[in-house]
Amino acid sequence: MRFDVITLFPEFFESPLQSGLIAKALAKQIAEVYFTNPRDFTTDKHHKVDDEPFGGGVGMVLKPEPLFAAIESLPICQGREIIYVTPQGEPLKQDHFQAWANNYQQLVILCGHYEGVDERVVENLVTQEISLGDFVLTCGEIPALTILNGVIRLLPGTVGKTDSLAQDSFSAGLLDYPHYTRPAVFRNLEVPQVLLSGNHGAIAQWRSQQQQQRTQARRPDLYAQWQQQQNQ
Amino acid sequence: MRFDVITLFPEFFESPLQSGLIAKALAKQIAEVYFTNPRDFTTDKHHKVDDEPFGGGVGMVLKPEPLFAAIESLPICQGREIIYVTPQGEPLKQDHFQAWANNYQQLVILCGHYEGVDERVVENLVTQEISLGDFVLTCGEIPALTILNGVIRLLPGTVGKTDSLAQDSFSAGLLDYPHYTRPAVFRNLEVPQVLLSGNHGAIAQWRSQQQQQRTQARRPDLYAQWQQQQNQ
Repeated sequence: MRFDVITLFPEFFESPLQSGLIAKALAKQIAEVYFTNPRDFTTDKHHKVDDEPFGGGVGMVLKPEPLFAAIESLPICQGREIIYVTPQGEPLKQDHFQAWANNYQQLVILCGHYEGVDERVVENLVTQEISLGDFVLTCGEIPALTILNGVIRLLPGTVGKTDSLAQDSFSAGLLDYPHYTRPAVFRNLEVPQVLLSGNHGAIAQWRSQQQQQRTQARRPDLYAQWQQQQNQ
Repeated sequence: MRFDVITLFPEFFESPLQSGLIAKALAKQIAEVYFTNPRDFTTDKHHKVDDEPFGGGVGMVLKPEPLFAAIESLPICQGREIIYVTPQGEPLKQDHFQAWANNYQQLVILCGHYEGVDERVVENLVTQEISLGDFVLTCGEIPALTILNGVIRLLPGTVGKTDSLAQDSFSAGLLDYPHYTRPAVFRNLEVPQVLLSGNHGAIAQWRSQQQQQRTQARRPDLYAQWQQQQNQ
């Protein structure tokens, strides 16, 4: 799968993409990530990418010309989505990762900066606006990195055991159960007895109860959705 | 403000913290970020940080001893929160950033890996579980980076003009209005006339309408909250 990140700060991504499972996936060529800097598509001598907002106000807005030129310079693969990461977008969910991993050959991810990008870019080039959450960051590079990570993780070959994907939080619509490992007693803190029992049925039941209880207590919104699914 | 990140991959953070506004804030010592690797607190010769889950199942769980030792090695500042980033946590909001920036001197951020951390660490050390969203990533380093960015952004001195913070998405409870900059006509695409009118009252009204319309169309959940606030 091909990823094109449109960013003023390509160097931001250097160390995160050299770390952990994602680095291994890139080394195995499960995915390819390319960076395009709108600054390279400016035509004035100061390489100006931003300008003051029409109508006044603080902050700067990314100009349309370098963004159009940067995006139009990219090769076009079949099945392409052009994502703009912005607090104004649709809240990111696991379903987005799954749909992109399953159905797309190329994701173009446009990172905003300053007050945002000229709306004409969004209206005429972007195919999906995505929000990482209801909070504000200094840059679109972190949401872009989140999308890269979540989608590459789902591509075949990135995560060793496919079970490890199937049992994830959210795949089942519930939060995960608590995990414990050795030692069974650490500073008088004991692992729940059932997990040491060897009784697979009892363990499965305990875990399922924990998932339901936690989801109900912490995320009544998810729990209500899950209950609806169960009743269908 | 002091940040301590507990991570198996401290090198992950290298380039993101050397980029943009955050790099400038760190250079100005508005915040200090320290990394502690649980692997440095293992006592066996293989420096083993993870082990199989009690009760069976795929994936590995981070062992309690190195995590307790890593967290207990940190200096303790007044007003300290120990955050574990996990899909099981409370969904991250702008209010979290604001509360941490206003009320805390030290944030310890524990990055999960593999199937997660031994639950005894969460129950006995962690003061807040936070989720970046309803999706799964390969590592807790991206959510940790998100928290670093969002909190440091709010510390006095990081963002130049304080107006730029006040007018953000979510500070007003509504999505942002569209932004436009020069040229007024680009490839026959025109900027809305009102923004070129010089009529400040009309511009403010247009922007406010845009915010309400967008929020209502895209995020009825936020819009309902905003309406409630207006009626109070």
